[in-house]
Amino acid sequence: MEITQVVEWNDGRAQRIEDYLAGEEPLEIRSGRERLGVTLRTPGNDGELVAGFLFTEGIVAKGEEILAIEAPGDSPQRRAASGNIVRVRLKHGVRLSALGARRFSAGSACGICGKESIAQVRRRGIRPPDLESRFDAEMLCRLPEKLRATQAIFGRTGGLHAAALFHGEGELLVLREDIGRHNAVDKVIGWALLQGKVPLTRHALLVSGRGGFEIVQKALAAGIPVVASVSAPSSLAVRLARELGLTLVGFLRGRRFIIYAGEQRLVMDPGKAGH
Amino acid sequence: MEITQVVEWNDGRAQRIEDYLAGEEPLEIRSGRERLGVTLRTPGNDGELVAGFLFTEGIVAKGEEILAIEAPGDSPQRRAASGNIVRVRLKHGVRLSALGARRFSAGSACGICGKESIAQVRRRGIRPPDLESRFDAEMLCRLPEKLRATQAIFGRTGGLHAAALFHGEGELLVLREDIGRHNAVDKVIGWALLQGKVPLTRHALLVSGRGGFEIVQKALAAGIPVVASVSAPSSLAVRLARELGLTLVGFLRGRRFIIYAGEQRLVMDPGKAGH
Repeated sequence: MEITQVVEWNDGRAQRIEDYLAGEEPLEIRSGRERLGVTLRTPGNDGELVAGFLFTEGIVAKGEEILAIEAPGDSPQRRAASGNIVRVRLKHGVRLSALGARRFSAGSACGICGKESIAQVRRRGIRPPDLESRFDAEMLCRLPEKLRATQAIFGRTGGLHAAALFHGEGELLVLREDIGRHNAVDKVIGWALLQGKVPLTRHALLVSGRGGFEIVQKALAAGIPVVASVSAPSSLAVRLARELGLTLVGFLRGRRFIIYAGEQRLVMDPGKAGH
Repeated sequence: MEITQVVEWNDGRAQRIEDYLAGEEPLEIRSGRERLGVTLRTPGNDGELVAGFLFTEGIVAKGEEILAIEAPGDSPQRRAASGNIVRVRLKHGVRLSALGARRFSAGSACGICGKESIAQVRRRGIRPPDLESRFDAEMLCRLPEKLRATQAIFGRTGGLHAAALFHGEGELLVLREDIGRHNAVDKVIGWALLQGKVPLTRHALLVSGRGGFEIVQKALAAGIPVVASVSAPSSLAVRLARELGLTLVGFLRGRRFIIYAGEQRLVMDPGKAGH
């Protein structure tokens, strides 16, 4: 968070005011002497971000393959001194080549389609999340308010995406924010990984933005059975959720939501069921 | 856009309804036999997306370096047949190596910081946009409504980001939507590039989402002097806009907005000036 001087224009009147800015800085990941890449992110919880990223992108298959993470810490002074670099030490034999390929990787030989994207997730060994888990539909409605209440304590810029992990009873376990939607999810999953809580078989993930393919893929990698968002999912996210049996909820606002996949996990009041 | 069966949960009552889904599919870019990479995008205007991407990321310095773009077209049938592949033919000598590095590129030798990110933009030869251009502050307030009115004709899912290019007098030239914010901007700038309209020295770009570093960088690459968003910019976006003299407006809602950089370009009613 930075404070800066800006000009507010309000119905023709201009005045100088102070405003908060959502932080955005590059972060470089290094392993030994190798530079793995740079990503833009909101500073804070950098170790979690890197752990979550390495895990959800399939670079490491479990937390134990990350032997050490040296993050610069959350103060601007420490960041400046260490140059926004996170150093990781990985178990011998972990292949790093996939890292640079994030979001822009080589396609398959026969052209590409949504089917191939889903097949790739299966090939990574990602399995359907716990099919026995059940979640109360009423409970889901209370999650956005819990997220906002917790966000209000920290956030003032309106410029950040949020992701939050809830236990099945609706208890908020962790909330992370970032200028990037995927980063916020990586931070949440990275937190859980470093706490030894993965797979998250009895948990729901709530994201403030859209539910795209990569969000669902990351949740599946962590074994999360329910993903909810206050906005719309994409076609490919819905297809992936249906094929791998994840419960995907969108437009979670007030006392209404849409179930795009995996409705069998949601327990609804039988007296009110309309179908 | 896809239609699918979903379950709507409304205050305890569940019913099956039909819903529209925002399209998301992978797109592969090829040059000759070389596979340059894959990105997720909302199908449609794929040629513009690739042209805009190649240009705003600095792979080509001008439109003439793109000799041909063969896009699969906008129908699902044609996409399935061609496998979501766009083939480009580039002028001899254009280096493609930078392409795979998008969003995850190697950092500098001395560690990285925001200063270095801005220096990289300068090293690409990107110069401040036209300093003589002037825009009416009142005109800016009318842009979001024009964007929404035009979006309403096409969009029904609520799941897409929008970017629109306006002429200095407030006339909407082009609107593009995508599941990815950067893709929407690339499509708009790609459209302008293919029309021979770049640099866009008398134009304003409006984006529906947040104004981050990469959005400002793309606008600067196209010579656009004004970037406005309905949400917040990031700290690094503001720093880049200030250093390179771009006018950056945020929270453009109703008859109020915040000017984060380049206020000298905005003409305000002198009778109402509060400072």
